[in-house]
Amino acid sequence: MTKTVVITGGNRGIGLGMVKELLKRSDVGKLFATTRNPAKSPELKAISDPRLQIVQMDVESDDSVYKGVHEVSISKALGSSGVDILINNAGVLISVDINTPINRKDAEHNFKVNCVSVMVVTQAFHDLLKTAAKQNGHSLIVNVGALLASNKCLHGSGPRHFTGYAMSKAGMNMFTTNVSLDWKEDGIRCVVLHPGWVQTDMGGAEAPLTVEESTSCMVDTIFKLKEEHNGLFYDWKLNPIPW
Amino acid sequence: MTKTVVITGGNRGIGLGMVKELLKRSDVGKLFATTRNPAKSPELKAISDPRLQIVQMDVESDDSVYKGVHEVSISKALGSSGVDILINNAGVLISVDINTPINRKDAEHNFKVNCVSVMVVTQAFHDLLKTAAKQNGHSLIVNVGALLASNKCLHGSGPRHFTGYAMSKAGMNMFTTNVSLDWKEDGIRCVVLHPGWVQTDMGGAEAPLTVEESTSCMVDTIFKLKEEHNGLFYDWKLNPIPW
Repeated sequence: MTKTVVITGGNRGIGLGMVKELLKRSDVGKLFATTRNPAKSPELKAISDPRLQIVQMDVESDDSVYKGVHEVSISKALGSSGVDILINNAGVLISVDINTPINRKDAEHNFKVNCVSVMVVTQAFHDLLKTAAKQNGHSLIVNVGALLASNKCLHGSGPRHFTGYAMSKAGMNMFTTNVSLDWKEDGIRCVVLHPGWVQTDMGGAEAPLTVEESTSCMVDTIFKLKEEHNGLFYDWKLNPIPW
Repeated sequence: MTKTVVITGGNRGIGLGMVKELLKRSDVGKLFATTRNPAKSPELKAISDPRLQIVQMDVESDDSVYKGVHEVSISKALGSSGVDILINNAGVLISVDINTPINRKDAEHNFKVNCVSVMVVTQAFHDLLKTAAKQNGHSLIVNVGALLASNKCLHGSGPRHFTGYAMSKAGMNMFTTNVSLDWKEDGIRCVVLHPGWVQTDMGGAEAPLTVEESTSCMVDTIFKLKEEHNGLFYDWKLNPIPW
């Protein structure tokens, strides 16, 4: 049976890479890729695949989120099935550091997008995730996280920069833990996946992984996830990461 | 040698309890207790101890934070010494849950106070913490945290409520990890302490611990902290808590 997948921020970087990798799989039946501005998403629009539907969604706006979810829910492609996999990929990295003057607006922006918007988007898709879980036994939320939100790894000399961003991704980890427990009875699983350090606008040119290397592995990993992985933190190759 | 201590939100609950316990110790030489509104802090104002100085500070306002730090820095009581212990106690608990409609303003407020304001206040006290560390070998930041921000404890059936609040306290944990590493060379340590579930406005009447039971232990624990505890998460009795 094929899966219905939703990914936020599908217009560039890791999001766009995952869109391409997801469409390589025959077990992906429908793919909804959200982007804040479809008109400014030429690479996403250039993909010609009948399974792909582009959905306008600004994750920072309730109106836009609910309108986008409504568009997914009434789509002919969806029919009476739900959403099997929601990938919360849209995020921001705003540099906020303890050793340079802190701009509250910048610091807050990391939390607004990486924490609060992820909560709002996830809640908005709850019914569609429940529907899929009822029909197919379970559904899945994948939160795209970051190794530098692992306290344990940082203490073990892991990467350490962007304190404000790391704090917001640690908040997202805690969201994952809560949802994995709160929605367990609905058959909805939730995990955090770290994509690696990737050559994107966010990761920079010196990153060791190409988008394709990361996202081909990420997508493989997503389709390997089982009940035992629920609520936990992994890298793109399904190696466990401690909190 | 006596210690100079700053505590934010010293006007009620655990903050007020810690003020009282700190003043029971002869090794506390000076105590600056901040409160948003001194005029509305009768219990704090009723404490008659020459070592106590009440400082007006709204942790959500840069102007107020920098004015408050200036007031501490020019205080005759401080003289040429720095701040040995900064206790980031001021915080909010705003109920934001994945199973009830999410109000973005409420969700953001947890992060604004428990994450961003803690960053701003801590950075504002950096110079005074460095001064104390130079004079006395080290200084200390204590972030008042919460057990429900432990991913590991939640997965082991720990307390689980207030998802949005827990996310913000997980962000604060990550802040602690970063500061403990970033400022290690300055001799500044940073820990998270969970005060237990305490009978305060925030904890409710059904909580098992009185303010005095929690804060007497908390203060004892603070004065027992050593280099080996730097960057880690403990409860009021110095039991380690996993991330």
